[in-house]
Amino acid sequence: MTTDTADRLIALKALPTPSLLLDEARMERNIERLASRTAGLGSALRPHLKTVKSVDVARRVLEGAVGATVSTLREAEEFFAAGVNDIVYAVGIAPGKLDRVIDLRKAGCDLVILLDSREQADAVGAASLDAGTAIPALIEIDCDGHRGGLRPGDGEIVEVARCLVEGGGALRGVLTHAGESYSAYGVDAQADCAEQERLAVVMAAAALEKAGFDCAVVSMGSTPTAHAVRDLGGVTEVRAGVYVFFDLVQAGIGVCTPDDIALSVLTAVIGHGEHHGAAVAMIDAGWMALSRDRGTANQRVDQGYGVVCNIDGRIYPELIVSETNQEHGMISVRPGSSGALPDLALGTRLRILPNHACATAAQFRFYNMLPADPGAPLTRWERFSGW
Amino acid sequence: MTTDTADRLIALKALPTPSLLLDEARMERNIERLASRTAGLGSALRPHLKTVKSVDVARRVLEGAVGATVSTLREAEEFFAAGVNDIVYAVGIAPGKLDRVIDLRKAGCDLVILLDSREQADAVGAASLDAGTAIPALIEIDCDGHRGGLRPGDGEIVEVARCLVEGGGALRGVLTHAGESYSAYGVDAQADCAEQERLAVVMAAAALEKAGFDCAVVSMGSTPTAHAVRDLGGVTEVRAGVYVFFDLVQAGIGVCTPDDIALSVLTAVIGHGEHHGAAVAMIDAGWMALSRDRGTANQRVDQGYGVVCNIDGRIYPELIVSETNQEHGMISVRPGSSGALPDLALGTRLRILPNHACATAAQFRFYNMLPADPGAPLTRWERFSGW
Repeated sequence: MTTDTADRLIALKALPTPSLLLDEARMERNIERLASRTAGLGSALRPHLKTVKSVDVARRVLEGAVGATVSTLREAEEFFAAGVNDIVYAVGIAPGKLDRVIDLRKAGCDLVILLDSREQADAVGAASLDAGTAIPALIEIDCDGHRGGLRPGDGEIVEVARCLVEGGGALRGVLTHAGESYSAYGVDAQADCAEQERLAVVMAAAALEKAGFDCAVVSMGSTPTAHAVRDLGGVTEVRAGVYVFFDLVQAGIGVCTPDDIALSVLTAVIGHGEHHGAAVAMIDAGWMALSRDRGTANQRVDQGYGVVCNIDGRIYPELIVSETNQEHGMISVRPGSSGALPDLALGTRLRILPNHACATAAQFRFYNMLPADPGAPLTRWERFSGW
Repeated sequence: MTTDTADRLIALKALPTPSLLLDEARMERNIERLASRTAGLGSALRPHLKTVKSVDVARRVLEGAVGATVSTLREAEEFFAAGVNDIVYAVGIAPGKLDRVIDLRKAGCDLVILLDSREQADAVGAASLDAGTAIPALIEIDCDGHRGGLRPGDGEIVEVARCLVEGGGALRGVLTHAGESYSAYGVDAQADCAEQERLAVVMAAAALEKAGFDCAVVSMGSTPTAHAVRDLGGVTEVRAGVYVFFDLVQAGIGVCTPDDIALSVLTAVIGHGEHHGAAVAMIDAGWMALSRDRGTANQRVDQGYGVVCNIDGRIYPELIVSETNQEHGMISVRPGSSGALPDLALGTRLRILPNHACATAAQFRFYNMLPADPGAPLTRWERFSGW
């Protein structure tokens, strides 16, 4: 063990448990991977900051990016205050939120909103006229029946654009998200999702341009499709969020490997026992720390509430967090494994890789950043929460 | 509509969405119900503050109580700073946490910890000797195989007590929690769990006393058993937490009705569409607001991600939040219902009753308190989080 590694170990043993760890080297590798891939395909990248909710992480993620994507107005406000001024708020707008949108725009943020109905377009037009500034919007396109949006061939797309523009708002373009790609195994299936995503949004843009509307932004993306897409023809920007940290859900569909996961929860063994006849080790990371997300439950390998690593981050392939209470987790041998529970003495520190990075990170108020330089001390990067 | 009710409605329409609402009248009724029940059975109540994580709520909950239960040292520190000085930390102790325990005790907090092994007892003894103050501990008893603890007839209980006391720590008593009672339907089944809980802890206390140890505290409890228990003979205190707010999991096993649930998430309709061929309304409360907790999934009635109410709190019996993404929820007619999705216009405000109050409350930084007096303005009660 080098002195640096020994120092890192001492630092990890001094943290309270549970704590959220962020591995800088892995994060930087993940960021670089998608940035170079998107650039290679001739498109811009607009990272989704809903996963990170941290100005410090955002600075790394946004390097070379065209702007940011957010899931809440609070994210828009926090990142704008930190100097990010090109932001897409990628959740369908509620009329009650337009006051905050206008405040941000008047302060100098080029905040663009999302809508998929004439009712929304009317509300945005009316608010634009009231405020004396045309609020720009993207029309949401539904590429796979996953969530909101209009189907790509729907004549309503042009009608919504007309309502928006005639009412006093501004059309910035179209946006889609291949939510179903999270259920697609392997790069070929994900590339198919990406092509479906691309065609949906390019077709919608063509319909709008044919009807005389300018479509400056043609936006698509999800972490699986952004990594699998082979052709970005007609697309102006790609969005993705969870790729910065990655997680077991993404590893489960082959977008990354568990060794790419930059986020983990540091925990300590607090006891030993039996559960349903099997030996278990109890840890002080329950669902409050790991989140209730069971995103791998319906994947080919159910990872329980997370995969167990030693304090250095080396995976115990046979172990998962099989059950949780609010502040208790149970580690056991995964179903079907012939392995045995290793000796995990009271107080042993472990790291748990999360099912879903967005959900697990949200349970914590800051990241304990493990610098890429093993000799550098741990630092604390703040997160925010709320709406 | 009275002027007061109209004012309340205006206040609810002015809140951002999603927001967390706390109905004071319901909360007070829930607090009073358990306090009078426990007093009637001749026992003390030690509310578990892991659900509320709020000094303002704690003040109401602790009125007449013997002290508090907490699930993290951060809760202990926050509540002690607010004047609560009799606290049980009811999660098995990790040796790395003893410094903070000692700091709290030296500051004047009678903080009692929990353990179930000689390894823990040794660590507590050693830390007590180092600090020059005997740390008091409860021995955890396993009444139903749910989690940690020693089985009531296990001779190890006395050995752990011996290690603890001879090592320099202090024995305060025994504690158990009937975690399995959350799967028991109806008051009779829950009363059986309560009796099992009581017998386990009373038997353990008797064994300790027979071996010459003093057992001042004999503590049991869970929300279902605290409401169902018929005999508290030999028990010195009862613990419960989620009863303050209640939730759909508790309603699902008959401990309360949905009309007792004091906590809800205010949300707005952001769109309409179809999902798997059924009409849905999209709302701006996704799993980030509602939590990923699906505690009713295996109950007799699966409530999805929550039950839908209008802005006044009146339940739509046919509707649930059927799916969520991070910031999107989908409202649809529940499976098997012959009802139809009502007209929920864009911007309509709704309240969602949560599956699990502990998990949903944890997603927010404050409660919007709806005072029992409908003419009184809304107030904001802060929550804390973290460890």
